Amino acid sequence: MGKQTIPQIEQWGTHEVALHGPSEGNPFLDVRLSATFSHGHRQVTVDGFYDGDGEYRVRFMPDAQGEWRFVTQSNAGGLDGASGEFVCTEPSENNHGPVQVTNTYHFAYADGTPHRPFGTTCYAWAHQGDALEQQTLETLRSAPFNKMRMCVFPKDYEFNRNEPVYYPFERTEDGDWDFTRFSPGFFRHFEGRVGELRDLGIEADVILFHPYDRWGFADMGPEADDRYVRYVVARLSANRNVWWSLANEYDLMQSKRMADWDRFFRIIQQCDPYQHLRSIHNWRAFYDHSKPWVTHQSIQRKDLEQTGRWRELHRKPVVVDECGYEGNIDRGWGNLPAWELVRRCWEGAARGGYVGHGETYVNPDNVLWWSKGGVLRGESPVRIAFLREVLEDAPAEGLDDMSEHDMACAGKAGEYYLMYFGFRQPAFRQLQLPSEVEGRGESMDTGEMTITLVEGTCSGECEVQLPGKPYIALRVSRAG
Amino acid sequence: MGKQTIPQIEQWGTHEVALHGPSEGNPFLDVRLSATFSHGHRQVTVDGFYDGDGEYRVRFMPDAQGEWRFVTQSNAGGLDGASGEFVCTEPSENNHGPVQVTNTYHFAYADGTPHRPFGTTCYAWAHQGDALEQQTLETLRSAPFNKMRMCVFPKDYEFNRNEPVYYPFERTEDGDWDFTRFSPGFFRHFEGRVGELRDLGIEADVILFHPYDRWGFADMGPEADDRYVRYVVARLSANRNVWWSLANEYDLMQSKRMADWDRFFRIIQQCDPYQHLRSIHNWRAFYDHSKPWVTHQSIQRKDLEQTGRWRELHRKPVVVDECGYEGNIDRGWGNLPAWELVRRCWEGAARGGYVGHGETYVNPDNVLWWSKGGVLRGESPVRIAFLREVLEDAPAEGLDDMSEHDMACAGKAGEYYLMYFGFRQPAFRQLQLPSEVEGRGESMDTGEMTITLVEGTCSGECEVQLPGKPYIALRVSRAG
Repeated sequence: MGKQTIPQIEQWGTHEVALHGPSEGNPFLDVRLSATFSHGHRQVTVDGFYDGDGEYRVRFMPDAQGEWRFVTQSNAGGLDGASGEFVCTEPSENNHGPVQVTNTYHFAYADGTPHRPFGTTCYAWAHQGDALEQQTLETLRSAPFNKMRMCVFPKDYEFNRNEPVYYPFERTEDGDWDFTRFSPGFFRHFEGRVGELRDLGIEADVILFHPYDRWGFADMGPEADDRYVRYVVARLSANRNVWWSLANEYDLMQSKRMADWDRFFRIIQQCDPYQHLRSIHNWRAFYDHSKPWVTHQSIQRKDLEQTGRWRELHRKPVVVDECGYEGNIDRGWGNLPAWELVRRCWEGAARGGYVGHGETYVNPDNVLWWSKGGVLRGESPVRIAFLREVLEDAPAEGLDDMSEHDMACAGKAGEYYLMYFGFRQPAFRQLQLPSEVEGRGESMDTGEMTITLVEGTCSGECEVQLPGKPYIALRVSRAG
Repeated sequence: MGKQTIPQIEQWGTHEVALHGPSEGNPFLDVRLSATFSHGHRQVTVDGFYDGDGEYRVRFMPDAQGEWRFVTQSNAGGLDGASGEFVCTEPSENNHGPVQVTNTYHFAYADGTPHRPFGTTCYAWAHQGDALEQQTLETLRSAPFNKMRMCVFPKDYEFNRNEPVYYPFERTEDGDWDFTRFSPGFFRHFEGRVGELRDLGIEADVILFHPYDRWGFADMGPEADDRYVRYVVARLSANRNVWWSLANEYDLMQSKRMADWDRFFRIIQQCDPYQHLRSIHNWRAFYDHSKPWVTHQSIQRKDLEQTGRWRELHRKPVVVDECGYEGNIDRGWGNLPAWELVRRCWEGAARGGYVGHGETYVNPDNVLWWSKGGVLRGESPVRIAFLREVLEDAPAEGLDDMSEHDMACAGKAGEYYLMYFGFRQPAFRQLQLPSEVEGRGESMDTGEMTITLVEGTCSGECEVQLPGKPYIALRVSRAG
């Protein structure tokens, strides 16, 4: 074939190899398939998967430009030894590659662009049918969020009793779930949603397990669990925007022990050739984030004042994915006023962490954003957008925690300080800055979203006048 | 003498026996004086004290009506064996006697009237000179507070650098303090202020030691400390409104060890014949409130959600005397907006505790209520008055902690429930009340200070509609 017919794949895009193979027996159990992709002297082997109807696929995300070749391996004769090539081209404008940890506590895309997670949660949005799912995507288009927490499995919980459109497994003739047969339609749909998030610049924080289940997916047994994890990794990991969240509220899942979680982490470590970010989200007890396979801390806690302590404890990024939701339902975790959620977001950010959003306002259809998506009704997103703008103007390498006992402060010594006073209302603040800093001070009303230049130069020991109102941040940055 | 000349002293008033005795040497060290008061077969011995210029006094607070006789004991011949009598009459209208612990977690005056402490703090108000002290008393006349935390010793701290009018000790010829010679004028002034509080119906929570000192009163040595404690007890304990607070922030006083605090408690236990309330206030580390001489827990903490835990831990009343102050100074403990202090007061109250007020607004003269008194500038006192009215309508025996994990609730099972949602904004709440309760529900906006009857009867498992705003309390009381 002529050189001009070689496929062109952008860097961190997905090259898919489709092959036809056996459909008899149970290919999910019987057929092993992988492919080795080569770029110069470098080789990367990735798992393929069965997609039903005798179709097999291997997906690959190239991380380097130039010519790549591949050859497949399989125990099924027709699938073994297939080969091909493609050319990896420059990434398109909004493609910065997958997100990785940088500078211990922070994140950056593979091309070096800083990533500051501003997550939201719609646990079951991909199980709501096309109309609502499209509405969710439309909402996200103008929302300030760049990460979405979403469950693979459907959800059974208050406000969440509807059946999903798709199920992840086929049924046996008796009507039971057959955990040995994945339902390709389910996963095609799910990975389509992940791709649509990618196209919106949104990371998909894919939650593999969760306790809110009436179908049995929370308790399939270790063999089925492991097969499921491998299958999801094989299908999804070539999406550059995937993060792996092993569970939501793992410590509520009675059917799994700590050794199970450890094993899932190790399987993903082995099978995901791109080493996408890996975390696990607690209900009460933290998983030991020091374990080497955890890339960042995914935390449920409301006391964001502890952010600095959590950073130091494990020396990994702190992402407080759930600190309570703006809303008005009958639950302490779901009836915060906007200003309290925004306070928590700032409190975490001004201590060098990253805090996520969620929303639970009752409405006539009881479509609550936190699990079904739909539209946003609250007052916090616009203020989170303001915080995001502030952080995007901050030093690219991420902020250190420089908090004092009665004030949150994140910054880079001598260069940049982002102080936050929460609900406190100081009329002034004495600062102790390096004397060589001739700083420009800006008082920011995080509720009103206004920025006011502070009089005078902030340098050495100085006293800054503040508005004596709650929810004020003070930014001091080196002038000029 | 005719019967008509026998002094008449109201119950829980003060009978003072004045005697003339030696003034040579150092009577504070050399002369011991006490008196035994008899009522029927009952005898109470109380210490007297030297008041300077050869004057000695023994003060006594009778707790039973009828005839009392006394006889003095002394190592000074002229003071020994003096005797007399008085008649103890009915207490006047607003005299309910001293406050004691009742029902494990609560307080009542000696006549059985409930006392629900609504304290405030003006640490050094009695050291500010007559004009400001009179202004403080005038402010208190219309304020909602019925307890005042006040230091015996003057205070040296930011916003508190002025010299006091009176000093507690005389000076030696070298100008050093003579810790063996109390200054009667100082104590006459101080006890006058205690008496004026009593006449306003305000308990005086007398703080014996504190760390904010430039004169040496925080580090006099154990002998002088003990003598000082005995002297204060002898002078003040016949005031029915006295509470003993051994220290403010005892754990910041480097010069004293735990054994010193234990010893002071035991001295007061021995010397105070009325067993006025005894506590000690922490900075960070709690004193062990389980020790038998502690009558109630005097706590500095901002996490009022722990109130129930502290109650159970020591099974004594919880008085959070410092949870932060309304104000706008440059300190995290002194720049809360009113609504956050009010939230803390409600949070503690709705868990069966008692939370105190303080205020630190900068002003041209920097007379801050929290230590100097003066006028109140904040928005919290009127809302604390609202809370006080609510609690005064609650069952007299005090409230049990019936909090749930996402809602504070204090009440009496089957009779009365005071629920509080803090900054949360539920639009509804499902209640599980005993089915025999046919309750009247009232939604209370603790910021706006309004009470709105809830539709329908609150009984059994029921759902109550709420305004979906922050700072709402829900009171359910048995109808009829």
